[in-house]
Amino acid sequence: MTTHIDHVYDEECRRFQDSFELVGKRWSPAILMAINLGSHRFSEILRRVEGLSDRLLAQRLKELEASDLISREVIPTVPVQIRYALTERGADLMRSLQPLVSWGLRWEPPRPNVRAVS
Amino acid sequence: MTTHIDHVYDEECRRFQDSFELVGKRWSPAILMAINLGSHRFSEILRRVEGLSDRLLAQRLKELEASDLISREVIPTVPVQIRYALTERGADLMRSLQPLVSWGLRWEPPRPNVRAVS
Repeated sequence: MTTHIDHVYDEECRRFQDSFELVGKRWSPAILMAINLGSHRFSEILRRVEGLSDRLLAQRLKELEASDLISREVIPTVPVQIRYALTERGADLMRSLQPLVSWGLRWEPPRPNVRAVS
Repeated sequence: MTTHIDHVYDEECRRFQDSFELVGKRWSPAILMAINLGSHRFSEILRRVEGLSDRLLAQRLKELEASDLISREVIPTVPVQIRYALTERGADLMRSLQPLVSWGLRWEPPRPNVRAVS
């Protein structure tokens, strides 16, 4: 028998999984955080995210733009500048993820099972 | 030059990525949600998570237990029963992820760019 709660669960669950697959790809959280913290140019993001190659950064930026999480603005200076920013949807996502960041800081190593004062 | 904010960023960012890799594996969010909603036995979880095979469920349960997100209790009935539950750490994670679920419901298809009333 399929109940109402199962339908709610199925829908929530699917969206939950989708959200994870959207944001959880290696480097994507770091890139979104860098942009959120004020790195708007390709070279700035690359400098901030340690270990990220420029090839992978270019690929992830395209994916995040296609997912409508970031915008790409071309500024007509000489030479042309490209500026990346969070979209409204992306900014809302970063706010929604803040509790997960806090969870990571409360529970992860280097001090397992010792809760940080929050 | 490495500034204080960079150190804070690096640490937050690493934890953020770790959290995603811990929880974001295909089926893990669905399994955690099912347990959170009251499915505690293997067969109950399997029934709730549509499309999940028993081989994969067994594997994910082991991983989630190793990550201290769920506990596995052996109840000495005849036949023996196994009961899965969220650990304190896992329950705290599920609470932290609620805003992400809400974000998914606000922004994802089937109605892109139309915000649900929250």
